[in-house]
Amino acid sequence: MSVTASASQPGPAESRGDQSADRRPSFDALRGLVADDLAKVNETIIREMHSPVALIPQLAGHIVASGGKRLRPMLTLAAAGLVGYEGERHVDLAACVEFIHTATLLHDDVVDESDLRRGQDTANAVWGNQASVLVGDFLFSRAFQLMVADGSLKVLKILSDASAIIAEGEVHQLVTTNDVETTEAAYLQVIESKTAVLFAAAAQIGAVVAERPQSEETALESFGRNLGVAFQLVDDVLDYSAEQEALGKTVGDDFREGKVTLPVILAYAAGDAEERAFWTRTINDLDQTDDDLGHAQALMRKHGTIALTLERARAYADAAHRDLDLFAPTAHRRAMEEVIDFCVDRAY
Amino acid sequence: MSVTASASQPGPAESRGDQSADRRPSFDALRGLVADDLAKVNETIIREMHSPVALIPQLAGHIVASGGKRLRPMLTLAAAGLVGYEGERHVDLAACVEFIHTATLLHDDVVDESDLRRGQDTANAVWGNQASVLVGDFLFSRAFQLMVADGSLKVLKILSDASAIIAEGEVHQLVTTNDVETTEAAYLQVIESKTAVLFAAAAQIGAVVAERPQSEETALESFGRNLGVAFQLVDDVLDYSAEQEALGKTVGDDFREGKVTLPVILAYAAGDAEERAFWTRTINDLDQTDDDLGHAQALMRKHGTIALTLERARAYADAAHRDLDLFAPTAHRRAMEEVIDFCVDRAY
Repeated sequence: MSVTASASQPGPAESRGDQSADRRPSFDALRGLVADDLAKVNETIIREMHSPVALIPQLAGHIVASGGKRLRPMLTLAAAGLVGYEGERHVDLAACVEFIHTATLLHDDVVDESDLRRGQDTANAVWGNQASVLVGDFLFSRAFQLMVADGSLKVLKILSDASAIIAEGEVHQLVTTNDVETTEAAYLQVIESKTAVLFAAAAQIGAVVAERPQSEETALESFGRNLGVAFQLVDDVLDYSAEQEALGKTVGDDFREGKVTLPVILAYAAGDAEERAFWTRTINDLDQTDDDLGHAQALMRKHGTIALTLERARAYADAAHRDLDLFAPTAHRRAMEEVIDFCVDRAY
Repeated sequence: MSVTASASQPGPAESRGDQSADRRPSFDALRGLVADDLAKVNETIIREMHSPVALIPQLAGHIVASGGKRLRPMLTLAAAGLVGYEGERHVDLAACVEFIHTATLLHDDVVDESDLRRGQDTANAVWGNQASVLVGDFLFSRAFQLMVADGSLKVLKILSDASAIIAEGEVHQLVTTNDVETTEAAYLQVIESKTAVLFAAAAQIGAVVAERPQSEETALESFGRNLGVAFQLVDDVLDYSAEQEALGKTVGDDFREGKVTLPVILAYAAGDAEERAFWTRTINDLDQTDDDLGHAQALMRKHGTIALTLERARAYADAAHRDLDLFAPTAHRRAMEEVIDFCVDRAY
């Protein structure tokens, strides 16, 4: 599994996000900068998910249109803008990134047996697991067709490598699920594989299409990877702390599925024998009562594991900020910095 | 859906397979010719399905090793041999073809909820649906990584196109399942998409790596497509007529799942009102008793729909023979002709 060691060792957290005194960081600046490109990406997505088999655009449209932030394709567009790219290749390749992400979501929801995603019924809840598996396969294949049409073996390598690592990470997560003794290092490797790798690939592609020096490619790849880990750690926190309406998913999903995430790992590690027995019963054995989620949240508060997880997330966010130091302080860079802060800030 | 019209209109059946008076056609000649290459393909398969996540080689190994005939990679090897290719690229690309096929099988078994394949437990029966979905994704990604390492955009186009058509065909089949009014033409399009396209791609790649003229590429692509349709039609027949031991799957699987295959389509079309009510009840509504499979087989005998389906299969087999007429009558060509005859002969 090709996970860089550097990304697992971010520097100490630094004070960032001073603007939050005035207003909270958001996606708005970046969304404004890439709005025209993003409209083209959406056109590509609509066009390329078309099929005479009507269920394909129906089902794919359900998930593609279901309120996702288009975060990953926006990273490709933002990175291309950051390095001054003036062509059009980033549009279709950003759509590829979104298709691969969407295929992963469709297969994830089958794997997780989820009924809700972003507050809406999942595709598998509406159309069944079979359709979700097969339409995911279609979108994945379509992504590779688009890459072939683009014609860059380098991009094909980046995204086929990313796809293999994602699948490997998902299997790894499947076999570590329901094991509260999972180490923090093993857990970080899972989320690097299943989330951060696609963020990294998405950002890297912006430099690849612009044919920028290797140093910029590497910096953008590292930026995406660090941002992805921070993003996932905050997601894990939200699963125990968010308002369901804001989160758009069911609070406690991870707990009920016995998913081992960092707040759990740290609480287990800090717990006494009785607490460990609680985690083993609820997470390993999935033997849960209605009160257990509340007790789990109380144990996390007791040991401060939500705060500790957010501290880790901030360290990755700071590393992502440092990755951007290579680039001129343009509007694109400022907007990307704000996205980093947004990803962490949404936990508060 | 890019399905060629010509393949759907094979010429009238001609008398072939004269050698069956002496001995039945088999795979043995072809297997002998490609034995060295096939050993290398198996090495590539073992090497490339390795992962530090142990479940991946375990599960992939289960299906890769579970008695499949390696028919598709052998088509790549045979086609390369037919056109006199002397390099090594066909080995890894044949492994790609097998990985794509294996990924499709893993996802198919989840979709079909099958417990047996080739007489063994399916991967999903042993490890669960989740693992089958994710390991399928891994093998699919790994296939693209291998193609990228090979470096031919043309091969990448052939196999990404094939993968998209396969997924589209599977979704199409999912929505036409349980509809006995499916037309023969619609059914043939499904099996061209879900089976014949990968046969076609596998054979075509043999000419591509050898950089042979377009006419040879086209002939091999057509050969694979016609062979694939013949192969699938015979498979459909075997599901109603084979000895379970010989078939290695459960006779009547298609019937019990309400799969609409050509023997059913033709029996429904030839049936009176009472018979049509039987098919609608058993296939559309999946309302079946233990006696229904036997009654279905009796209706097929009454209307001769097994024989009619085999007649169609023979027409495609004859078209596959004609596709090979372009090539010199070498040992490779004779062995490939025998494989065509074997694919049909196994129904008797």
